[in-house]
Amino acid sequence: MRFDVLTLFPEMIEANFEYSIMKRAVDAGIIEINTVNPRDYTHNKHRKVDDTPYGGGAGMVLMPQPYVDAYDAVEKITNSCTVMLTPQGEPFNNKICAELAGYEQLILLCGHYEGFDERIREIIKPREISIGDFVLTGGELPALCIIDSVSRRLEGTLGKIESMEDDSFSDGLLEYPQYTKPRDFRGYKVPEVLLNGNHKEIEEFRHQQKIERTKLRRPDLLG
Amino acid sequence: MRFDVLTLFPEMIEANFEYSIMKRAVDAGIIEINTVNPRDYTHNKHRKVDDTPYGGGAGMVLMPQPYVDAYDAVEKITNSCTVMLTPQGEPFNNKICAELAGYEQLILLCGHYEGFDERIREIIKPREISIGDFVLTGGELPALCIIDSVSRRLEGTLGKIESMEDDSFSDGLLEYPQYTKPRDFRGYKVPEVLLNGNHKEIEEFRHQQKIERTKLRRPDLLG
Repeated sequence: MRFDVLTLFPEMIEANFEYSIMKRAVDAGIIEINTVNPRDYTHNKHRKVDDTPYGGGAGMVLMPQPYVDAYDAVEKITNSCTVMLTPQGEPFNNKICAELAGYEQLILLCGHYEGFDERIREIIKPREISIGDFVLTGGELPALCIIDSVSRRLEGTLGKIESMEDDSFSDGLLEYPQYTKPRDFRGYKVPEVLLNGNHKEIEEFRHQQKIERTKLRRPDLLG
Repeated sequence: MRFDVLTLFPEMIEANFEYSIMKRAVDAGIIEINTVNPRDYTHNKHRKVDDTPYGGGAGMVLMPQPYVDAYDAVEKITNSCTVMLTPQGEPFNNKICAELAGYEQLILLCGHYEGFDERIREIIKPREISIGDFVLTGGELPALCIIDSVSRRLEGTLGKIESMEDDSFSDGLLEYPQYTKPRDFRGYKVPEVLLNGNHKEIEEFRHQQKIERTKLRRPDLLG
């Protein structure tokens, strides 16, 4: 799967793929990360990408010309989806993640400190996605969250030991509590049921824990 | 404000502070970023931090000993809050962000691919926060989102031109559309009202747009 990221800070994107599972996914050819900097598409001598808002107000606004020209320059393959990262978008979740994982290319549009000129939306018509009801200095971290969560669904990204079968939300519930060695740590013990080898009892215990935890922490998920 | 991040991939955290506004905030002494690697607190010769789950199942689980010992080693200052990044936590939003910005220290606990042994929760008793209903390969990106959104609220992080007064969610609504130069781009024009210099009309137009956009995209925010 191919990711093309429009960003004024390509290094912030690239740095994330030098470590751990994401590096492995790139090295294995499961994902490919490209960055495009709208600053390279400016026509003014200071390579300016933003300007003050019409109508006044604080903040700078990304000008349409460098951004749309940069977008036009991205090679689009069949089965491609363009996503703008913005607090105004639909809230990202596991279901949208699964949808996005069905494309062969995601083009991700990041802003930085300032907003997008509305005409960037009107011309590109991206799917607008927010990773939550909070504000960041740029779209780079949200873009990385989307790439990470989508990539880990692709075959081969996670090894057997990192399976996603028990993930939170995979069945609409939060995950059950996990325990590993030692059996006793500072007097805190692993529940007996997990040590007795009775798979039916273990399964029941875990299912019960999922329900209780979801009820307690996120009753909204039980709808 | 001080951030101490427990992570198996300290470079993933550190790389984010080499660019843009976050670098400036560090250079200006507004924020300080420390990382602590639980791997440095292992007592086994392979520096192993995880093991298979009791009761069986896929995935590896972070062992309590290296993690809790690493946590104990972090210097805690007065007015400190410990946050665990987990899909099982309360969903992060602008309100929680404002609360967290009131502390002088945030200690952020990141997992990576695997879950936390439940006793890490029981012993440390962190505030558990999720950045959304999706799953990532680690807590590093969520930790960075929290540091970014909290830091931009601190005095001096944003310059005048990057003011947060018109942010989405600052008044419970989405942001109004923004326009900058040129007035006409590929036939798409800036709305006349923004060009006429009538501040009262501009304010009304923008307020109307905020309401309409929120109603259309996020009716849940209007309650």
